[in-house]
Amino acid sequence: MLLGNAKIVAIDKAPDKDQLSYCMIDNGAVAIEGEKIVWVGDADAIPEDYKDSKKFPYRDLGGRLVTPALIDCHTHVVHGGNRAVEFEMRLQGASYEEIARAGGGIVSTVSATRAASVEELLASALPRVDALLAEGVCVIEVKSGYGLDRETELNMLRAARAIEKHRSVRIKTTFLGAHATPAEFKGEPDRYIDEVCIPTLRAAHAEGLVDAVDGFCEGIAFDTAQITRVFDVARKLGIPVKLHAEQLSNIGGTKLAASYGALSVDHVEYANEEDAMAMAKSGSVAVLLPGAFYTLHEKQLPPIAAFRKHGVPMAVATDCNPGTSPLMSILLTMNMSCTLFRLTPEEALVGATAHAARALGLSDTGQVRAGMRADLAIWNVSHPAELSYRIGFNPLFERIFGGVPVAR
Amino acid sequence: MLLGNAKIVAIDKAPDKDQLSYCMIDNGAVAIEGEKIVWVGDADAIPEDYKDSKKFPYRDLGGRLVTPALIDCHTHVVHGGNRAVEFEMRLQGASYEEIARAGGGIVSTVSATRAASVEELLASALPRVDALLAEGVCVIEVKSGYGLDRETELNMLRAARAIEKHRSVRIKTTFLGAHATPAEFKGEPDRYIDEVCIPTLRAAHAEGLVDAVDGFCEGIAFDTAQITRVFDVARKLGIPVKLHAEQLSNIGGTKLAASYGALSVDHVEYANEEDAMAMAKSGSVAVLLPGAFYTLHEKQLPPIAAFRKHGVPMAVATDCNPGTSPLMSILLTMNMSCTLFRLTPEEALVGATAHAARALGLSDTGQVRAGMRADLAIWNVSHPAELSYRIGFNPLFERIFGGVPVAR
Ligand SMILES: [Zn+2]
Ligand SMILES: [Zn+2]
Repeated sequence: MLLGNAKIVAIDKAPDKDQLSYCMIDNGAVAIEGEKIVWVGDADAIPEDYKDSKKFPYRDLGGRLVTPALIDCHTHVVHGGNRAVEFEMRLQGASYEEIARAGGGIVSTVSATRAASVEELLASALPRVDALLAEGVCVIEVKSGYGLDRETELNMLRAARAIEKHRSVRIKTTFLGAHATPAEFKGEPDRYIDEVCIPTLRAAHAEGLVDAVDGFCEGIAFDTAQITRVFDVARKLGIPVKLHAEQLSNIGGTKLAASYGALSVDHVEYANEEDAMAMAKSGSVAVLLPGAFYTLHEKQLPPIAAFRKHGVPMAVATDCNPGTSPLMSILLTMNMSCTLFRLTPEEALVGATAHAARALGLSDTGQVRAGMRADLAIWNVSHPAELSYRIGFNPLFERIFGGVPVAR
Repeated sequence: MLLGNAKIVAIDKAPDKDQLSYCMIDNGAVAIEGEKIVWVGDADAIPEDYKDSKKFPYRDLGGRLVTPALIDCHTHVVHGGNRAVEFEMRLQGASYEEIARAGGGIVSTVSATRAASVEELLASALPRVDALLAEGVCVIEVKSGYGLDRETELNMLRAARAIEKHRSVRIKTTFLGAHATPAEFKGEPDRYIDEVCIPTLRAAHAEGLVDAVDGFCEGIAFDTAQITRVFDVARKLGIPVKLHAEQLSNIGGTKLAASYGALSVDHVEYANEEDAMAMAKSGSVAVLLPGAFYTLHEKQLPPIAAFRKHGVPMAVATDCNPGTSPLMSILLTMNMSCTLFRLTPEEALVGATAHAARALGLSDTGQVRAGMRADLAIWNVSHPAELSYRIGFNPLFERIFGGVPVAR
């Protein structure tokens, strides 16, 4: 396939810049063979090989914009139930205790997730996945972490993997056993880590279900010593790590994650310049999650200036979860990154493509470049800034997954 | 048609409450004849007449939720161009002057709107309209105000009216000549009001294009004396008024509008309790526009407590416009109303249905009630709070416009 008459936003290193940028080709073309991009460039410079319309059927894109397919690199799309009634109770003025008494909070999601079968978890995740795919997403990261027991954690990861069988999308699974201490281990987080979390991680790895290991390092969750024990096991198993860190306070999670060469450190509102320097050194991506910031009415902005100064790559993601970020739109996430965090639209787009790929350890997607997978999004817009500018509007024309056009 | 096995959210006065509320019927049915609802009630109590499946073909809604169709009662969906590049420049650190020099600001929208034909204005509005319809909207208010000359103001209203010919939607048009002083009248707002705005209002009314008259009463726009002159003409012509007031400061627009019995006063972040009392007396609806609040990083919340205390009906709307609120989702508007303004999900839903209808002077839509138009939205959710809870997710199953099911 040869896509022509296209405005291509390659997402690459411009000769004059250190950072990835749009690298637009105003009148461009992309040649695709199988699931790979084999050539990208100016429409005037298409090599003869790709002009053979039998081998490379030509498609005129009518001047539309082509970007790398988007990537949601931090989600909890697999979970049971929803927390709409809790959302309502809170706005009606219910206290934390009243909500807890009514069975609200993460406990309610854990109960609903434990009560669901793999098939039910899959079925309830698919509409959320579909919302992302409709916006040009080709890779979604999915975490466990609402089971907090061996079988349910495994079931969440099995459901996540099963998404690939039902939709044209690549799923990266992350084991997040260290998300919260379940009620039955109340006050005994260490015993939970040792008796449930770590053995379950080994079991999930044995079943081939773990692409990365994550944790929630926070005053209300696990401390650095507990996360260290989990990360040590991940390292022995050869699995890369990432961490929910510095979301509500700074307790050292970012430095810990960086010391393990984490793929990413996520949230990081309370990270400081030293943390940014540690991340720059380890090459960890800062995954910004404005949906949780928005929902929780947070005021502390992530240290964007320090990330820019030290060259820490920034990604953006929905954090799609039933409690703190019931957000199912990567385009809105990009808008929120700009509006709430003051990223530029260029940083937002790089953050939902190349840097998101890097946060998942993927080097074959996230850019429009020869040799990469042909995961592309084609848009009814004329400038890439439009993708971040509009709020609650989806201008996708078509999604291409591994060289195959997919109806939204 | 008889819709059964439905959870109906009627939006009505409960016996024990002053305000409109959900008034849910858990196992309900709705009988529709022509474009009207003829009966609503418990599935156990369907009158014999409506059980005649020839006259009332039965549809089992599988327990889905039925609400009144949503209404977007404040939009600027008809306009030329977009301001994505300006959005990007601002985030790249450009100053106000640099943006103005680059042709940014409202001036750029006025230029693009003047350059467009009625057909072009219509064509560019339709994708925005479609985004709203896909979320169950059946009525959209559309304002002029980016022409600021006679012909373009008329063209905007003509384009707005033409939407009804291309989509299953009801359009209410609002003349907003007093939106800004155009460059050619710089420093002479009074002359603009007298020589362009008022004569154009008369011409638009003569052409049958004006359902309401609006203005922008603000330090950066028009003062109360100027708005008064426009409202006096509206009154003589028998056209109801509404006003953009108290968005950035309090200069008396709300009280002025209330004194003219305004259908609505919109934005109103800086309105005070006295303003709320004036609105309660005049029966004006407070139209809350969280998209602009979000985009402009405003801090001043509208006086929700005073509105509640004095029984001022609150509506919510997108304010869809290319500068301060490029928001095209009424569901996201409802979420923002809850998250940013602390409305309850019930207030948000009433605000996008019955109160929005009232802000447009409509008494035949916005509730699921015998005698009203059968403008309905059917949702894949089980509780109405879910409509406000999720962020960037559309659970619409089907829209019914005047008794006719419409594919999204
Ligand atoms: Zn998360
Ligand atoms: Zn407006």
